[in-house]
Amino acid sequence: MNKYKILVQYMGTKYSGWQIQKDQTTVQGVIRDAIYQLTGETVSLVGAGRTDSGVHALGQIAHFKLERKLLLDKLRRSLNGVLPWDIRIMRVNLATETFHAQRNALRKRYEYRIFNAEVLPPFLRGYVYHLPRVLDLEVMQAAASNLIGSRDFKGFAAKASRVKDPTREIFLSKILKKGRQITYQVEGNGFLHHMVRNIVGTLVEVGRNQKSASDIVRILQSRDRQLAGPTAPPQGLYLMKVWY
Amino acid sequence: MNKYKILVQYMGTKYSGWQIQKDQTTVQGVIRDAIYQLTGETVSLVGAGRTDSGVHALGQIAHFKLERKLLLDKLRRSLNGVLPWDIRIMRVNLATETFHAQRNALRKRYEYRIFNAEVLPPFLRGYVYHLPRVLDLEVMQAAASNLIGSRDFKGFAAKASRVKDPTREIFLSKILKKGRQITYQVEGNGFLHHMVRNIVGTLVEVGRNQKSASDIVRILQSRDRQLAGPTAPPQGLYLMKVWY
Repeated sequence: MNKYKILVQYMGTKYSGWQIQKDQTTVQGVIRDAIYQLTGETVSLVGAGRTDSGVHALGQIAHFKLERKLLLDKLRRSLNGVLPWDIRIMRVNLATETFHAQRNALRKRYEYRIFNAEVLPPFLRGYVYHLPRVLDLEVMQAAASNLIGSRDFKGFAAKASRVKDPTREIFLSKILKKGRQITYQVEGNGFLHHMVRNIVGTLVEVGRNQKSASDIVRILQSRDRQLAGPTAPPQGLYLMKVWY
Repeated sequence: MNKYKILVQYMGTKYSGWQIQKDQTTVQGVIRDAIYQLTGETVSLVGAGRTDSGVHALGQIAHFKLERKLLLDKLRRSLNGVLPWDIRIMRVNLATETFHAQRNALRKRYEYRIFNAEVLPPFLRGYVYHLPRVLDLEVMQAAASNLIGSRDFKGFAAKASRVKDPTREIFLSKILKKGRQITYQVEGNGFLHHMVRNIVGTLVEVGRNQKSASDIVRILQSRDRQLAGPTAPPQGLYLMKVWY
């Protein structure tokens, strides 16, 4: 068996997320079908992160095994020839026998993009969360930095989330501004379901002075999803990079 | 009568260009209809430049007159409420009685965006001209600079173009590179039909060493459209700015 590692970019708008689900069009399903169409082999395709419905990726990593050994460039080109334009295989590499895209991931970076101006330029539609009202970036920055470290993130996870250990280590958590675009950048060893979007929904409330930077600490300590802000919409979220 | 000047951004993909045409959806037509819907007044809407089908604008300027005097912010908000998302009114100002968006334009900037890499990231689809093959930017730059000055551009105009005087003055004509994106930036006192896209089609041939930088001068002198390269596709072209 030959193991392949792919770097995938996708625009999540039309997909019910990464993970294969019955009667839904998912990124994982579409790529698996494309591999089948090209090789006749039904693979198990493992992605680094299960992005939700409507969430984008610039740096999703996945692996799969094939009986056949194919030229990497040819495999990439053939896959892109079969896949729809909103899913692109940017790179194909051979992986070692033990490589696992999900379990071996040491660190992931997500970005959440907000456009903070009254009118949304048409070119950003579907790619950002549009917030017309001015946000206080200084307090958002202070709030964001309160998330760094190894912490129990239960308060920021989806209510239905039932992981045994909700502790995650956050290495980087900061707000960037470029013109009218505000980007929240976060790196961690793992993320709970809805965690980034719930953090962003809370940071936006902080930026509107509805919550304070220290409320972030309180939400972490409470482990109570009710205390955090709303889940920010999916179209602002990007899986940027995975480290192994 | 009150004269209004608007700054418009649009994604040209779904439109048959700016100019109203029978049985076609055009940007001018859609904005005129939106103004009618809001005010009951059928205006004559004059744009600075007639962008072609599929061409985008980040800085189109237009003017129109209304019997009624409306608050500028309210007019902008109401128009954006009625218009489809791919046309946005970024600014509304009162114009002087003599202002004319087309005739008073002193200078316009267009940009043409090329993505020069094997795989097109999904997020750029519809926003750039995708060229996988590597281009020689140095000769393209030399060729581009040969266009600066006051010249007869008949050789770069659409064959059907029948302007009396095809002389235009080009103030700026250069190639910029940022990562894999190559941008051709051009400023002039006016542009003939298809002129920018024909220039780009020719510059691409220069970048592939199918034409030389001095061929540009020959095409200008010949006034022969046949000698120039093909018309580059519309989705890479943006009307960026108009000076008065």
